[in-house]
Formats: sequence, C-alpha cells, structure tokens
Amino acid sequence: MTDLFSTDKLKSLLPRIQAFIREEVVPVEKILHAKSFIQMEKDELHQLRQKAKKEGIWAPHLSEQEGGVGLSLSEFGQVSEVLGYSPLGHFVLNCQAPDIGNMELLHKYASKELKDKYLHPLQQGEIRSCFSMTEPEFAGSNPTRMATTAIKDGNEYVINGHKWFTSSADGASFAVVMAVTDPEGTHAHSKASMIIVPTDNTGFKFVRNISIMGEEGSGHSSHAEVRYENCRVPLANLVGEEGSGFKLAQERLGPGRIHHCMRWIGICERAFEMMCSYAAKRELAENVPIASKQIAQQWIAQSRAEINAARYMVLHTAYGIDKNGAAAMRVEISTIKFFVANVLKEVLDRAIQVHGGLGITDDTILSSWYRHERAARIYDGPDEVHQYVVAREELRKYGVKL
Amino acid sequence: MTDLFSTDKLKSLLPRIQAFIREEVVPVEKILHAKSFIQMEKDELHQLRQKAKKEGIWAPHLSEQEGGVGLSLSEFGQVSEVLGYSPLGHFVLNCQAPDIGNMELLHKYASKELKDKYLHPLQQGEIRSCFSMTEPEFAGSNPTRMATTAIKDGNEYVINGHKWFTSSADGASFAVVMAVTDPEGTHAHSKASMIIVPTDNTGFKFVRNISIMGEEGSGHSSHAEVRYENCRVPLANLVGEEGSGFKLAQERLGPGRIHHCMRWIGICERAFEMMCSYAAKRELAENVPIASKQIAQQWIAQSRAEINAARYMVLHTAYGIDKNGAAAMRVEISTIKFFVANVLKEVLDRAIQVHGGLGITDDTILSSWYRHERAARIYDGPDEVHQYVVAREELRKYGVKL
Amino acid sequence: MTDLFSTDKLKSLLPRIQAFIREEVVPVEKILHAKSFIQMEKDELHQLRQKAKKEGIWAPHLSEQEGGVGLSLSEFGQVSEVLGYSPLGHFVLNCQAPDIGNMELLHKYASKELKDKYLHPLQQGEIRSCFSMTEPEFAGSNPTRMATTAIKDGNEYVINGHKWFTSSADGASFAVVMAVTDPEGTHAHSKASMIIVPTDNTGFKFVRNISIMGEEGSGHSSHAEVRYENCRVPLANLVGEEGSGFKLAQERLGPGRIHHCMRWIGICERAFEMMCSYAAKRELAENVPIASKQIAQQWIAQSRAEINAARYMVLHTAYGIDKNGAAAMRVEISTIKFFVANVLKEVLDRAIQVHGGLGITDDTILSSWYRHERAARIYDGPDEVHQYVVAREELRKYGVKL
Amino acid sequence: MTDLFSTDKLKSLLPRIQAFIREEVVPVEKILHAKSFIQMEKDELHQLRQKAKKEGIWAPHLSEQEGGVGLSLSEFGQVSEVLGYSPLGHFVLNCQAPDIGNMELLHKYASKELKDKYLHPLQQGEIRSCFSMTEPEFAGSNPTRMATTAIKDGNEYVINGHKWFTSSADGASFAVVMAVTDPEGTHAHSKASMIIVPTDNTGFKFVRNISIMGEEGSGHSSHAEVRYENCRVPLANLVGEEGSGFKLAQERLGPGRIHHCMRWIGICERAFEMMCSYAAKRELAENVPIASKQIAQQWIAQSRAEINAARYMVLHTAYGIDKNGAAAMRVEISTIKFFVANVLKEVLDRAIQVHGGLGITDDTILSSWYRHERAARIYDGPDEVHQYVVAREELRKYGVKL
Repeated sequence: MTDLFSTDKLKSLLPRIQAFIREEVVPVEKILHAKSFIQMEKDELHQLRQKAKKEGIWAPHLSEQEGGVGLSLSEFGQVSEVLGYSPLGHFVLNCQAPDIGNMELLHKYASKELKDKYLHPLQQGEIRSCFSMTEPEFAGSNPTRMATTAIKDGNEYVINGHKWFTSSADGASFAVVMAVTDPEGTHAHSKASMIIVPTDNTGFKFVRNISIMGEEGSGHSSHAEVRYENCRVPLANLVGEEGSGFKLAQERLGPGRIHHCMRWIGICERAFEMMCSYAAKRELAENVPIASKQIAQQWIAQSRAEINAARYMVLHTAYGIDKNGAAAMRVEISTIKFFVANVLKEVLDRAIQVHGGLGITDDTILSSWYRHERAARIYDGPDEVHQYVVAREELRKYGVKL
Repeated sequence: MTDLFSTDKLKSLLPRIQAFIREEVVPVEKILHAKSFIQMEKDELHQLRQKAKKEGIWAPHLSEQEGGVGLSLSEFGQVSEVLGYSPLGHFVLNCQAPDIGNMELLHKYASKELKDKYLHPLQQGEIRSCFSMTEPEFAGSNPTRMATTAIKDGNEYVINGHKWFTSSADGASFAVVMAVTDPEGTHAHSKASMIIVPTDNTGFKFVRNISIMGEEGSGHSSHAEVRYENCRVPLANLVGEEGSGFKLAQERLGPGRIHHCMRWIGICERAFEMMCSYAAKRELAENVPIASKQIAQQWIAQSRAEINAARYMVLHTAYGIDKNGAAAMRVEISTIKFFVANVLKEVLDRAIQVHGGLGITDDTILSSWYRHERAARIYDGPDEVHQYVVAREELRKYGVKL
Repeated sequence: MTDLFSTDKLKSLLPRIQAFIREEVVPVEKILHAKSFIQMEKDELHQLRQKAKKEGIWAPHLSEQEGGVGLSLSEFGQVSEVLGYSPLGHFVLNCQAPDIGNMELLHKYASKELKDKYLHPLQQGEIRSCFSMTEPEFAGSNPTRMATTAIKDGNEYVINGHKWFTSSADGASFAVVMAVTDPEGTHAHSKASMIIVPTDNTGFKFVRNISIMGEEGSGHSSHAEVRYENCRVPLANLVGEEGSGFKLAQERLGPGRIHHCMRWIGICERAFEMMCSYAAKRELAENVPIASKQIAQQWIAQSRAEINAARYMVLHTAYGIDKNGAAAMRVEISTIKFFVANVLKEVLDRAIQVHGGLGITDDTILSSWYRHERAARIYDGPDEVHQYVVAREELRKYGVKL
Repeated sequence: MTDLFSTDKLKSLLPRIQAFIREEVVPVEKILHAKSFIQMEKDELHQLRQKAKKEGIWAPHLSEQEGGVGLSLSEFGQVSEVLGYSPLGHFVLNCQAPDIGNMELLHKYASKELKDKYLHPLQQGEIRSCFSMTEPEFAGSNPTRMATTAIKDGNEYVINGHKWFTSSADGASFAVVMAVTDPEGTHAHSKASMIIVPTDNTGFKFVRNISIMGEEGSGHSSHAEVRYENCRVPLANLVGEEGSGFKLAQERLGPGRIHHCMRWIGICERAFEMMCSYAAKRELAENVPIASKQIAQQWIAQSRAEINAARYMVLHTAYGIDKNGAAAMRVEISTIKFFVANVLKEVLDRAIQVHGGLGITDDTILSSWYRHERAARIYDGPDEVHQYVVAREELRKYGVKL
C-alpha cells in the first residue's frame, strides 16, 4: 500500500527488476559460500551485469544521459528495496556502496579530468572504488577526529595515515581518501579534504582484509585496513574544494542512508518470506506446522507491522529530500537510520528462531545477514548518535542547546 | 511531513481546530479532576460545543448536509489527531466514541423513523448514546459468544442479558444493544442483531458505573454495567437486518480503529511535548536540565520515531480505506491497532518517567492517560487477536489455514 | 527453592503470617474501594492489628525487647514478601513505610525523651508518622538540593519550606522533616538535618492530599503537600547530630530498599497467581481457556523466571547486609532497586493483559497496583540514578571516575 | 556475593583455574582465527591439556578415583563459569560438550567392556566423541520424532539414518547414536535407544562439517552432517537398556543445561569486562571516554544486574539438583535455560555496540560469541519449548492439563 509513491516509471521498471533479481540473481547466491567474491566478480557477477545492461536496468541511480534510468530518490529507494532482496542485487546493477556514493560525489564535485579517468569507467562497471575515512585510532562516530594528513609538497599531496573499514579496497582501482589538509585549522569542520588515490600508488599499503563476523571476504565484499605511507598524488586529485571534506562526507551520507534503509527493508522482506514459508512447511509434530504456534504468529505480525512502518518512514523521507533537499530532512534521516536498523535486527532474529538449527547454518542466507548486518546499528553513525541528533533538534524547539 | 495526505480542506480546517483545542479546550482540562464529567457536560462542555458550532468545526465526521464538514477518513484521521491532544477534544466536537460509531451505524442502517428519533438529535449533540455488546461472562476477544437474547413476542423483542463496558450509558438516551435473535442458529456469525433500547425503558437496569483504574467517572466518561430484564422494545427498533449484528459490528470497527489510532497519536504528541518541555526546564542540578541526559534524549528520539511511524501507517491505512474500502484493508487495520497501542504505551511511560514524582500525580494529564489508555491494548480486540489476524492473512499466502 | 535463606524462626513464623494474610487480611481488601482508608484505620484495620498482636506476629522488624519478633534483614525480607501479597499486609503488622523507617531512625538516633514521646507509641501502633523530605521545586533524584531551612532562634528551630510526597501525613502525629540547618555550609552533604515536627504545630500547614494516579487517598494511604511556615520546634527535636541529615537518609534507604523490593515480589506473586488462575478458568471459546494460548504461557514462564531472579538477588543482598553492612552492599542495593521495579512492571502488565477488560477495572486489585506501583521506578531513586551508581562503581575498577 | 555456594574445595580450586585460564589459555585464543581447530588440538591445546593435568585441575567433573577433582554440580557450575571465560577453557580441562555428557552417560550406563574401550580413553583426553541425535528432517524441539532406525540382524544392529548437528564428529573416535529400535512401538518415549558407533565403521558416512555462522570449523569445533548407511555394530554397543534412549537423553540434559548456563555466564563476564574496559579507554572526543555516556552506563548496569540474576538462579538450581535430583528441579532447569540464554544475547549485543566497528571484526572474541552463541536460544530446546514447560507445570497447580 505504498501506491502514493508509485510512478509510471516504477510501474514499468519495478516488476522487471524484481523478476530479474528472483530469476537471475537469487540462483547465484548458492555459490556465495563456495567461491571467493572476487572470483565471482569475474565470472557469474560479470555475466549478470551484462544481462542487466541488456535488460535496460543497469545503474538505475544514474541519469539517462549517464547510461542510467533517471530516478528520483523516492523512486530509487523503491528499487533499492527490490535489489536488497538479494545480497548480490545492488552489485549486479552497479549501485552498490561505496561505489554509488563515489559516483555521486565525483559527478557533483570532480574535475572533468577526474571524471574521465575515474567516474566514467566506474559508471560502466569497468572498475571499482573504495572510500577511506574511518581510522582505527578514533571513534567513527565523531568524524572530525582523524590523524591522516595530506600535506602539500610542490604540486603533490603527501598523504600519511592509517585507515580501516576502507570497504571494497581489495580489487578497487582507486580510493577516495579523507585527510587533514589544514592541520593548524581552527575549525574542525574545514580541516579535511577528499583526495583520489589510485590503489596502485606505491604509498597505498594494503594491510589486510579484516575478518568481519567470521569472514575476511574478498573483492567488493571485504573491508580493508590500509596504510598511507608518503603516498604522493597530484594536487589535481582533490575532489571539490580544499577543506570541504566533511561537507562532502555529510552530503554523501543523506541519500546513502535512504539507500541503506531501503536495502535493509528488502532484506527484511526476504527474511519475512523465509520465516512465513518455513513456518508453513516445517512441522513440529504431525500436521502441526510452526505456523500454528501463536508465538510464531506474533513474530510474523510484529514483523509485518514494523517493516511497513519502516518503509513508510523511509519513503516519506526520500520524498521530502526530493522535494526540499537533504538538509531539510536531517532529523528524518537520522530517525530512519536507527529505526530501520532496529527493525532489521528484530526481523532477522525472529526469522532465525523460526528456522531453528537451520537458521544458524550457512545453508540459508539468514546467517550471513544476521552477522554482517549487525553493523547496521554501527556504521554511518551508531544508533546513539542519530538519537542524539533527533533529540537535539526536537529540544531546540524548547530552548535547549545541546 | 505528511503533506502527501494534506488537502485544501484540511489546510483551512486543521489550524482552526488546533487553535480551538489549545486555546479553548485545554484550559478547561484543569476542572476535570474537581468536577464530575456529567456536570461538566451541562456547563463548560456545553458552552464549548456551542462555540464549536459557531466556529463551523462541529461534527467534522458528518457530511455537510448533515451539519458536518464532510471529510474523507484520511482527512478525519488528521482531525482526530488534533482533537486527541485533549481528552475533551472529541467530545466537544461531538465525534466521541461510542456516539460517532452509533451515528455512522444509524446513518447507514436505521429506518427513517429511527433516524428522526435517535440519529438527528445525536448529530446535534442534544442527546448521547451507548453501545452495549460486551458481557462479563464471555471474553470480549471472541464477539460471537454472548448470552443476551432478544426473543420476539408479538411486535416486540424481549431482551434479557447482562452487559458491561456499556460505555457512556450514564446519562445516555439510548443504547444500541447486541443480542442473539436466533439462538438456534447454526451460523455463529448470523445469530445476533443490533436493537435500539431507550435507557428509560423499565427493562434497562443500570447497575453501576464500573470503577476503572481508580475512577468511576460519570456521564460520557464512564463505563456501565447494565442488566436487561424482560426489556421490551418494538421490533421496529431493529437496526439493519435481523442476524446482521456481527456484520454491522465489524463494519463499525474498521473506521473506529482509525479514529482511536489517530486519537492515540494526538495523545502521544501531547505527551511528547510535555516530555520535551519538562526535560528542558526541570534541573537535576544547577544548569543541568533533564534534557542534557542521554537517556532522556534517547527516549525523545525513540518516541519521535515511533510516533512518526505510527502516523504514517494509520494515514496510509485510512487512505486505503477511502480508496478501496475497509474490507480491503483488514490486515492494515489490525496492524495499526496493535502497533499504535504499543507506541502509546511506550511514549506515555517515558513521559511519566521524565516527570518523576510529578508524573504520577494527577497534577498533569499524563496519569489519566497512563491509566485509562492501558485499555488501548485490550478494547476493540486485544493485541494478540490483531496479531493473529495479521499472521493468518500473511500465512494464507503460504497455504496455511488458521 | 530459597531454602538457603530459611531459618528455624522463619519456618515457624512464615506459615503463620501467610495464613493470617490470606485468611484475615485479604478478605478486607474488598472494602478498600468503598471506604476511606483513614476510616478503615479506625475500624477493620484496627481490629486486624489487635489480632496480629494476639497472634504474636506484630511488628516483626522490631527486636523482641521492643515487642517485635527479632528478625535479621534477610528474614524480614521473606516476611515482607508474604505481607506484600496484600496491600494491607505491612500496615496490619505495623511495618509499613514510612513508619518502619522512622522507627529505625528514632531507635538508633533519637534521645530518650524523643523515644518516649514518639518512638514507643509508634511501635505500639498508637500513632502514625510521616517523612518530609522531597520538595516540588527540586528533582527528588538529587537529595542534596532543597530550600527548606531550619534556623536556630533561641532554643528553637524555625522551619520554613515547601514539601510534597510527605506520605501518610494525613492523620500522622509527627513528621520527620529534612531541612537545611547550615545554609552557608560548603559541604552539600552536611548542610541538612532531621527534625521532628508534631503535626499539630501551628506552623505545619497541611495543603492537600495530592491526587496520585486517580486517588487522593486518606490516612496512611495518602501523599501530602505540606508547607512549613515559621514552624517553631525545640532544638531538642533534632534527630542525631546537626548536619547528619543526608547520612541518616542514606542509612534509612538501604534496608528500606530491601523492604520495598521484597514487598514488590509479594505483589508479583499475587499477580502471578491471579494471572494463572484467571488463565485457567477464563475461556476464549468453549473448552479453550486462556491458559491454552502460547503467549499466555510465555508470559507465565517469563514472569516465573523474572520473579525468581528478583527474589534471589534481593535475598542475597539482604544476606550480605546482615553479614557485612549496607555500605558494603551499595552496588547490590542499587541493582535490586531498578531490577525488581522493572520485573514488577512487567508482571503486572502481563497479569492485566490476561484479565482483559476485567484487568483495568477496580474489581480486582491489579489496577491499584498497576497505578500506584508505577512509582516504583521513581521513588527512592529512579532507575536511571541507580543504574548510574552501579555503572560508576563497576567503571571505577577500570580507572574511570564518574 | 555468591559465598553461600562457596566450599573449601572451591576456595582452593577456583583461583588456580582462574589464573590458569587467564595466563595460559587466553593468550592462545589469538591463534584461533589463523589455525584450524583440529590442528590446534594437536599442538597448543595438547600442550595446555598436559599442563592442566600437571596442575591437578584436569577433568574437574570426574570423581577423584576417575582422575578428576570430585565436585558437586553446584561446585562444577562455578568452575564452568571460570572456564567459560575463554572459548578454549572447557576443552583444555576435558569437560567440553558433548564429551562431558558422553562421559557421564557411559559412566552410568555402559558395560564394563564399553567403558574400557570408550570411556576411559575419553576421560584421559586420548580420544574425542560425538553425539548423534538431531535429524535435518525433523524439528529438534520434538526429540521423539526421528527416522533413524537400528534394526537387529543376528548379533548386530543395522543402523540407517541421516543426522546433523553431530557436533565434534570431525576427528571423533566414536558417536553415541540415537536410533529407533522399536519402530512398531506404541510408546513414543520408549522407541529409541543409544548405541555406540565407531567413526571408522564403514557405514558411518561423514558428509560435511556444516558451515555455521560463517565457519565450517574443524575437529572439536565443528558440527557434522552424517549418514548411517547399513551401519553394523555389535548389539553389545547398546548403552543402557533397549528403549531407554529418550530417558537417557533427558537425564543427560539436566546437568548439561547447568554446564551451558554457567559457561554462558562466564562468557557474559568476559564480555562485561571488555565492555567496561573499552568504554573506559576509548574516547569519543578528547577526554570524553565512552564510559562517560549515560547509555553506556545503563548498559553496564543492566548487564551487571542480569548477569548476577542469572548466576543466582543457576547456582540455586544446581544446589537443588545436588540435594534433590534433577527431576525435582525440572521447572527450574527450563527456567534458567531460556533466562540465561537471553541474558547472554543482551550482554553480547551491548558489548559489541560499545566496541563500535571493532566489535564486528574478528579482532576481538565478541564476534565469535555473537555468532555461535545465537544458537543458545535454540539448542537443547528453544526458548519457546522451555517456556512451555515452565507454564505447563505452573498451570498444573490450577487444574490445567497441557
């Protein structure tokens, strides 16, 4: 019942993407556990991407002249839910994080040269990228604290620093690096800049793919620790203006949170389907399916309620961003970030409990989501930070300055 | 950000009602604890009703030809939220339960004679009514079980039975009584009928206003126990067809749940305002307002998220009912019933905790809501019944018959 | 299975008290709603107190030479649970708050003259008392902030101030008043003292019994607002040393929290019995008792688990206080305060939900507990303060000073 | 403050085991991610086991004449908590599941020949074993449903069936297999028997180590799928009497749940330490450690309360089993099973949230517990089954037969 958000474009597009995900992408998931992701990128995922291009559903976030479909954020949100149904969905359509954020960033702020060199092949899916901001020594929830510096030396920046959660660095062609360009600067929010670093730069030291929740992963599906050691890049690799790093990071996050939230709702719907389906067929005793148990019914009803609530909130937020810009929707963006992440937590937990022993195995996709989406309450700002933002703005109306 | 549900009518109407509630109605609340409700009906509330008529905001649920404003359910829902800001709001505009439900019922199903006698004065606010369905001997969650009978004798029904939660009976002019007219009937859902009983009928035995959460109440604000003892009324007092009692009750409940849910959201917004306002001004130590505490901030943020979620769900449901009818939205109606009732629970509890000792006194309105809206998870179907309905419909898609 | 805490004394005493409560006290509860408490004190409760004296179960907290039974805190805790089964239990045995705390205070710190005048008749149940600390203008969670002063003038204190939650003041013979005796004092914790004020003093201005959760109450069962206006009492009315007010208040609270917690567990057990009993007999359909529903079963199981957990924690804490003193158990005392208060909340809520409509009426005792024990998470330190205390002490081990 | 459960034996033993775990075992944990478990069994763990034997802390569950320490269940529970501090603890002292359960089973019910061949080398840590009960085709929550049969043929059983969650089968020397020996039997509870199958039997078909939460594991740390295909073993391999399978399984589970629960409490204490320690040192801004945030403080306080509650409940239950036997404590055993599993869930979740990004990496041990102990609410009976058991027994007192 989200027809208030439906559009002619979506009416034609969504069923095609949905069919593509279910018929073409989902069957490939079973390989996920047997094959490295980086190898899949070359094989199965490469083929699926070609098919997606042929189907005309490639890169739905891009404008038509950039080779995409040209969707509003509210429309793309609805696509993102459908893609989120499979952990491979976004990748196959080339709208996976962090590449989608980097595309948007470069589209808006990169020079023509940088666009030619980095953006266009990225949009075509010929290369991948990563985003290098978080540092192990500082709490990610406070992005103004970082030790990585980019010091000018002639016509180059010399970057030194230590990063982790540089997700997808393994196999990426370049990193967008956040570094302090004005160490003496008095304004915490204008000290840092975003700079492009090719990963074949000798100063880019790949340390490891961090093992996350039991898996090191590879390729797009990995989270690297990286060191920048006297890493020299041309001044021209700067994205936007010097000192605009935090502004750009902030801008990047608004739509990014819509993407994540709608992807999570897609996960929720898949988990919900699996929960209902398993409850319907698995018997506790002869002719006593799990579905006949009141607690399973309660979980199903609560999940349905919470998923619906989450979807409405996110789509209204996306609609508001389309209409009034992300800045006007700052509170709503923080609200959905923690609200949906917690719905995701509950729905996955219930789906696993219904599956019993099977639920903790990797024979279903639930385990992977349960593990890797634990991060949803942490990345892009933990729940507590977003709750603070919401409270701060609400309390401001009562004269409180937080 | 619910502008998708805004209409020209609302743009002019809502601010006027909002101003009326805050300026005219809220100040009267302070009398609530000192004066009986039934006396207030004659004094302050009577005056407020006259003002509401003058303001042209009277009975906003009625069509214009019936003296109302002519709103869709989605529009009325938004009015209901604004009215819910005060516990007196609905009454002052004559759209309080159970009268609003009875008006709708009689409007649709009563004969011209019954309309003239009962509906029209009810619409004018000249009389009040009550609805007599629940019986102490049977669980209200299963409405097909009842012992009250209405047996035909000549051109009369003879009603015998025992009811409670016949809310607002004290001072009401008539009751709509649910009684079994076909005791031998094989179909549980077509055994009962709705019949109008004037409260001055000698067979209508008012037993007591049940003390609910510390208050017996009076007038509109009461919940009676009633016995029907050889209570004779003309056959013409039947509403709709014989045997249609459950059908009509069901029909009555759909929009009724929208009304309740939106009223609860109005309560939530008031409690939220009170929580923020008190947190802003109450100091734990010098210059340390409660608002500076992270847990208070978390409660504020969670409440904001949950209230927004609740409102979106209810308005989308109302919109769906406007468009496709209540039957098409059965699952959504059950979903909002338990979801919003639980949001209400949490928001009130947090608001009280922020108020500390003050929160449990009757010096604020929070205590009254905390007490009387405990019923929200019980009346019109307890949470567990609505969760069952949602699960049943979801599981039906997987071949499960519950 | 708390036999580790059983003693010979309890083995003989507990069954007698239990029988007394169930057979003599519980039947009187039905009058509670019809008669003022202050009148019941003169009639039914007076008679029950005489019976209790005859039974040799009077004032079980007092030593044998004071006319009591002479129990350790761990033993008295177990008695307190049994008394908590009825809201009248503690009163009938004269170990109700705030009198029990005042008795302990005067026993330890009052002069012989004050003991003769106030303590002995209090122990005999001939008079009642109140405790006057909380002020409406200051958050009760920070007890060092208060505006009431007691200024020496000749051989008298002149007390001026505004108090509320001076519980049981209505009908009490004297108040123990906390007032600042050293307004210029630099140490917040040694500025105040406890002073006895007879309620017939002309400077003791009884303002009102505050309506709490729908009831003003009366007598012992009330919470007064009081003003002290040039209230003169002899210097000899000082309890303990000047400036020792906070120390004594703190000391008073340690065992007081054991008493409350065990009383709450008594309430929980009664609510649990009612929940099981009603679930067993109330049918949702023919031969389908509520007890057959899985969610009701879950509530019963969760309640059983939580009540057991609560009891073990409190008894171990009481045992620790008996052995090592209250100061050594500060963390445990804060732990049980918030833990048990939250168990109480959940158990009462579930019991009400099982009772459906009946649960919100005052036809059962659940409504009264639901309303009045909402305060359990607020009085004697709200949850958040006790959680802070526990965290502060745990984190101290890691070098954090909070 | 569990000194009521302390004994002279524990006073000497516990500090030694605690020191051993912290000094010898914990440092080995860092290898866990780099090396297969089955290899560690031969290297580091083998050496640690030799040290444990020298320290006289080996196999603390065994009687002294069997080479153990001779502890009551209540004593062993306290040891189990200390061992649970490290995921390697129980294995190093040879009291890991499922071997500890098999030792107890064979000790009580195996013939002298079986004891010589299987029990004694198991007690010495020379071999490992597994327990083969759960079948993928049947819900584990109803153990009477299984398809595996053991049909007599001459002096052999011929076993056919399909099992999974045959934990530790990889590298084990024998399996205790639950199989139906009386397929025509009318009593569901006496149809099955326990039979020893050496894993080098040609009918024992090892299928795979099931990938669980991201890891296939190996050796003791694995969960196998196994097929029995015309697997012939001597009739003498029967453990106990024919048809006693369920009875023995039930018996095995009572103390087993104490072991698990106390191990979980050990995990909780480690996670709690990590949470406090990280909160103390990790700064959100300069001189603003996480520990200064109220929500972190609340998590610490709630965790302390819940862990204490859990420990008291389990130790009282163990004490009751020691005194009155497991049958008398059936309700308590079910109570702790679901209560402690849920405490574990909450404490781990909070510890991870405090750790932020680090918490989801495998750089700390939290991730592994978060993943693998998700099973705690499922294995040995899911929460819902244990809640049913508790409710059934409580409701029996009110005449309800479930």
